[in-house]
Amino acid sequence: MKAAFYEGNKSIVVGTGARREPGPAEVEIKVAYAGICGTDLHIYHGHMDHRVKLPQVMGHEMSGVIERVGGDVADYKPGDKVTVKPLGPCGECPACQDGCSHICHRLQFMGIETDGAFQAYWTVPASTLHRLPDELSLQHGAMIEPLAVACHDVRLGQVAPGEYAVVIGGGPIGTLIALVARAAGARVVVAEINPYRLQLLEELGFETCNSKERDLAEYVQEATGGKGADVVFEVTSSLAGAEVMTKLPKVRGRIVIVGIFSKPVPVDLHRFFWRELQLFGARVYEHEDFEQAIQLAASGELGLDRLISEVYPIEQIQAGFEQMESGSGVMKVLIQCN
Amino acid sequence: MKAAFYEGNKSIVVGTGARREPGPAEVEIKVAYAGICGTDLHIYHGHMDHRVKLPQVMGHEMSGVIERVGGDVADYKPGDKVTVKPLGPCGECPACQDGCSHICHRLQFMGIETDGAFQAYWTVPASTLHRLPDELSLQHGAMIEPLAVACHDVRLGQVAPGEYAVVIGGGPIGTLIALVARAAGARVVVAEINPYRLQLLEELGFETCNSKERDLAEYVQEATGGKGADVVFEVTSSLAGAEVMTKLPKVRGRIVIVGIFSKPVPVDLHRFFWRELQLFGARVYEHEDFEQAIQLAASGELGLDRLISEVYPIEQIQAGFEQMESGSGVMKVLIQCN
Repeated sequence: MKAAFYEGNKSIVVGTGARREPGPAEVEIKVAYAGICGTDLHIYHGHMDHRVKLPQVMGHEMSGVIERVGGDVADYKPGDKVTVKPLGPCGECPACQDGCSHICHRLQFMGIETDGAFQAYWTVPASTLHRLPDELSLQHGAMIEPLAVACHDVRLGQVAPGEYAVVIGGGPIGTLIALVARAAGARVVVAEINPYRLQLLEELGFETCNSKERDLAEYVQEATGGKGADVVFEVTSSLAGAEVMTKLPKVRGRIVIVGIFSKPVPVDLHRFFWRELQLFGARVYEHEDFEQAIQLAASGELGLDRLISEVYPIEQIQAGFEQMESGSGVMKVLIQCN
Repeated sequence: MKAAFYEGNKSIVVGTGARREPGPAEVEIKVAYAGICGTDLHIYHGHMDHRVKLPQVMGHEMSGVIERVGGDVADYKPGDKVTVKPLGPCGECPACQDGCSHICHRLQFMGIETDGAFQAYWTVPASTLHRLPDELSLQHGAMIEPLAVACHDVRLGQVAPGEYAVVIGGGPIGTLIALVARAAGARVVVAEINPYRLQLLEELGFETCNSKERDLAEYVQEATGGKGADVVFEVTSSLAGAEVMTKLPKVRGRIVIVGIFSKPVPVDLHRFFWRELQLFGARVYEHEDFEQAIQLAASGELGLDRLISEVYPIEQIQAGFEQMESGSGVMKVLIQCN
């Protein structure tokens, strides 16, 4: 079967991989589409060489149809349309014991520490599966994983109807957070500087603030009559994002840290004291976030099509990574794996 | 009457002040004791000249007995033993409208923006009063305000019985937080480097970590079997405190920011993401915190006597400030105002 192997040095080679017979509690999936995530791009840039083993099959945002099931699998059968929650927790560490297996101390992330979805067939534990409804297209199915991230972020941010939410950074995850927060009943403004993204956000009906041209803190002050935002999502992992995020929330407002900061950055802890701000780190997702993502995507109301910039056949996966790398005119790139 | 006037340049002059007749909704208190707070020391050092008007009567941690009541005051009478919650909210801003009048956008803090308690008689709104029970001494009554800060911090930190709590910084507020967290059923360790404070904490029965000699993160890891702390109180407002605070909590553990940071400091936001940490800013107190503080102090179980390092008559208030300033061998200094 075809498989895409990351070989280091920004090189992905499409070759032949070996299909793996599903074990007793496993299934083999015929992969339909797999999205390129920012994390895949990090791996491609060599920033995660300590976590991957070369050659590495990446990819963890996917959809597909079950091809074969192992002996002990009762809930799924060949032909079922599914996606995968790509987490491999240990089950034994304090986090797992505490009901937080999604942030297991020894988490194995599928497509990073183990085999991923950029291949024609993928054999995975049946416990990682989520069923996709008939009305959900396989392309949208490949968006469930990042959408579940957004559902998790919005849930941890406790977004309530009528609230004023600010999303700092309108890339793929920021845009999905904006969509989910709007679906939760919030008024959403997205701060972004990239003209392509700004236009896309406006097409999706979002209020935007081009923070290159307009002071975001002033914007939010004015928009909320001096009160401040109920909730702020920091999705840029930038110095500027960390600086502005504390200026936006109301008294006892919430900040959700979604961006992955590579090193400590200055944060105005005085503002946390002064306004009794709250900050919540959010990482990946839990079972209920996947289920909510599937429900939201199946409703057809999110406009996910608009987020898919390009679909490449697996043979051209390197071109897909290069387009993602260019950054400016792209949102989500999918790889067609069969 | 005697009153202590801060005149700038680390100078406090004790002279004669004018007693003020209580207005309709006010009372005049004969002040018994008033504690010197870290904030008073900040004012004394000239760091808050933008908030005070010279000459300023400071002091906001106090106890006393009502001397006179205004016409509309029905709930209090001369002879009642009271303390004051020294907050003057505007009642109209978004914070006040949202039920957070203690962090009003235009808060007037008594003893900073307005007249304080370092005087023989103090006229205040009756709405700021809390009644002190007979069994509570007037010296302990002057500890209610900082104890209410600790009650607020522990409440916002959601400390539950059996939890592992770390207090970074064992000064007056850190020690009170430790006492309140222990009363809430937590196992408490206090990190401190000052030998005087370490000894005092041990006399109070606390586990301590001298973070000069022992790596606090390692200590907490070992003590919790690799899980991490349930809750961490940052009370030092130091670079080192901001650095270590993110290393201590368990997955979804809480950090409470109590220290008043004068400028942005590096914070490991990646750790917030990685462990889904939560951070809560906490400022002053609310009504229920004062009531809890009075109840705890009246129980006699906190050992508050041990925290009172010295009591000076008002004539020697400057000596009290100088002792506080010396820092090393002192916890709380009280001024006897009559």
